[in-house]
Amino acid sequence: MNTYHYDEIAIGHTESFEALVKAEDMESFKAITGDINPLHNDETFAGDRGYEGRVVYGMLTASYLSTLAGVYLPGERSLIRSVSTKFYKAVFIGDRLTIEGKVSDKNDTFKLLTVKINIKNQKGEKVLKGEMEIQVLEVEENE
Amino acid sequence: MNTYHYDEIAIGHTESFEALVKAEDMESFKAITGDINPLHNDETFAGDRGYEGRVVYGMLTASYLSTLAGVYLPGERSLIRSVSTKFYKAVFIGDRLTIEGKVSDKNDTFKLLTVKINIKNQKGEKVLKGEMEIQVLEVEENE
Repeated sequence: MNTYHYDEIAIGHTESFEALVKAEDMESFKAITGDINPLHNDETFAGDRGYEGRVVYGMLTASYLSTLAGVYLPGERSLIRSVSTKFYKAVFIGDRLTIEGKVSDKNDTFKLLTVKINIKNQKGEKVLKGEMEIQVLEVEENE
Repeated sequence: MNTYHYDEIAIGHTESFEALVKAEDMESFKAITGDINPLHNDETFAGDRGYEGRVVYGMLTASYLSTLAGVYLPGERSLIRSVSTKFYKAVFIGDRLTIEGKVSDKNDTFKLLTVKINIKNQKGEKVLKGEMEIQVLEVEENE
């Protein structure tokens, strides 16, 4: 886990990681949310709508933004203030996603980073674009 | 699960449901995302930052928007196009949240609903506000 302080992050700073979407993640997400929608749970229903398999919950893909902020950018001192996402392409079980964040702006008064988000699949196709505002919590530690 | 068609939903249409945030949901969300940030996993770390307990992942709270769209508004024919959220107050394990969506606009060409989101805790305090664009998938079914 990264432990960046606000002053250690410059505009342009980029972090990324990979995540494999597993069938069990779909089950866990359904258990958390109660979202029983058949597009995500019924192969035939999804197939009838032109998809090659059950479509991964968009908000499951968006969940990786939690990790991007909380583990990578800035890591430990992360506090997410806002998130906006647009979904571009369906994600399927077995897809390996690359989640990337790039700092596009900083607000020194509020120690707030604006981070542009790109998530691509293993074919390099854009599946999600977005933006987050992430505060860097600067507290007196280990006193 | 609701099965609204696009034409059955008017501007002003509102749907809501409740969700209890459980400790096991935090474990599941960590397993899905790999977000090991201590604010969500370490009572002492969270307490040192002024929180009464481990803070629920903001993106876990946002995950209920999947259910709002996929089960309630419009339910079965849901396809989320975009989501934007702002976080107003920390959520804790044991909180009972009310997730509400209200249709604020419709785009007939794209069969797209704009839905204003409000999530409140059991004290009536606002914890998340946001907006979603949700397409209503109108396909020929059962042919």
